[in-house]
Amino acid sequence: MPYVNIKITREGATPEQKAELIRGATQLLVDVLDKNPNTTVVVIDEVETDNWGVGGETITVRRQRE
Amino acid sequence: MPYVNIKITREGATPEQKAELIRGATQLLVDVLDKNPNTTVVVIDEVETDNWGVGGETITVRRQRE
Amino acid sequence: MPYVNIKITREGATPEQKAELIRGATQLLVDVLDKNPNTTVVVIDEVETDNWGVGGETITVRRQRE
Amino acid sequence: MPYVNIKITREGATPEQKAELIRGATQLLVDVLDKNPNTTVVVIDEVETDNWGVGGETITVRRQRE
Amino acid sequence: MPYVNIKITREGATPEQKAELIRGATQLLVDVLDKNPNTTVVVIDEVETDNWGVGGETITVRRQRE
Amino acid sequence: MPYVNIKITREGATPEQKAELIRGATQLLVDVLDKNPNTTVVVIDEVETDNWGVGGETITVRRQRE
Repeated sequence: MPYVNIKITREGATPEQKAELIRGATQLLVDVLDKNPNTTVVVIDEVETDNWGVGGETITVRRQRE
Repeated sequence: MPYVNIKITREGATPEQKAELIRGATQLLVDVLDKNPNTTVVVIDEVETDNWGVGGETITVRRQRE
Repeated sequence: MPYVNIKITREGATPEQKAELIRGATQLLVDVLDKNPNTTVVVIDEVETDNWGVGGETITVRRQRE
Repeated sequence: MPYVNIKITREGATPEQKAELIRGATQLLVDVLDKNPNTTVVVIDEVETDNWGVGGETITVRRQRE
Repeated sequence: MPYVNIKITREGATPEQKAELIRGATQLLVDVLDKNPNTTVVVIDEVETDNWGVGGETITVRRQRE
Repeated sequence: MPYVNIKITREGATPEQKAELIRGATQLLVDVLDKNPNTTVVVIDEVETDNWGVGGETITVRRQRE
C-alpha cells in the first residue's frame, strides 16, 4: 500500500527512464519492507526549472551558470 | 480549513467532473467533521499515465494490456 | 488508482469519522469518474493547530479568539 | 534542508515573480530557523483554475462571478 | 535536486529499514537519471493505520480481517 | 487561495517560530502575487530526523557527525 512521490525537474526524462524509476521504487519497498507491489503506487511529478529553487534561486538560473 | 488533494491520471476528466469532485469532497468534510466549506480547499492533480505506476509498471503499459 | 490526501487539524476526529472520510472519498471517485475502489488510496494527515495557519496566524490563535 | 511547496493557481505568474517566491521562502527559513539556504528546496506548483476549488466550487466559476 | 516522499503505514519500520529506503531511493535517482545524491532529499511519512484507506476501508480494519 | 507546505526536521522549532513561518509565508504571497491572506493556508510538517535523508543518509546520522 505504500505511496511514493518523486519530484524531478522537467529536463527530458524519457518514458523508459520514468518506467525504471517506477519499477525501482516499487522494488525498493518490496525489498526493504516486504510490501505488496500490486498496491504500491508511484507518482512522478516533472517540474519546470522556473518553478524549482535551491539556494534561493531557480534551477533555470543555475543551469545558465553551469 | 481542510485541504484535500486528489491525484488522478490525465485521461479525459471533464471540467464538469472535476467540479463534481470539488463539490463532493467539500461536502464530505462538512458532513463528517462539520468543517466550514468556505475555507475548504480542494486541488486536483492530473498526472500523465507515463508518470503513474502501480505494481511496478506505468499506467500507460497497463492500459495497453487491457 | 486515484490517490486522495485529506489534511485536517488534529482536533479530535474519531476513528469512525476518519473511516467515514475514507469511505466517502473513495465512493466519490467511483461515482464521478468510475474509478476502481480497490486501488483507490486515501491518506488523512492530522496537523497540530500550531502548525496550520490561515490569514497569517495559527489555528491555535484563532481558536483562542473564538 | 527544508522543503517548501507553494501551490498557486496558474494565472500568469511571471518567471520573475516565481524567482521572488523562491528567494523569499528560502530567506524566511534562514531568518526564522537559521536553516542553510544551499539545501533549502522550493517547488512551485501552478494549478489550472478548473482544478482548484474553494467553498465547493472551482476558481474558474469564482473568477467569472467577480 | 530530486525530492522523494515515501508514505507507509506506521507498523514498526526500524531506523535501519528507513535508512535503507533513503539510501535506495537516492541511489535510484543516481542510477536512472544521473542526479546528484548530495542534493537529493527523501522524506518518509509514517501514517497511522486508522488514517490510511484502501478499497474504502481503513488499514486497521483490513489488518483485523487478515 | 494559495497553499504552502513547509517541511522541516523536528528539532525544536517553537510555537513562536512556527507562527513566524506562517506569517512570513502568507506575507510573501501577498507581496509577490497580491494574494488574499485570508484564504492563504500554510501547513508545517515536522519530520523526525530518522525519516529525512539527504545525500543518501538520514539527518540523524548527519547530526552525529557534526
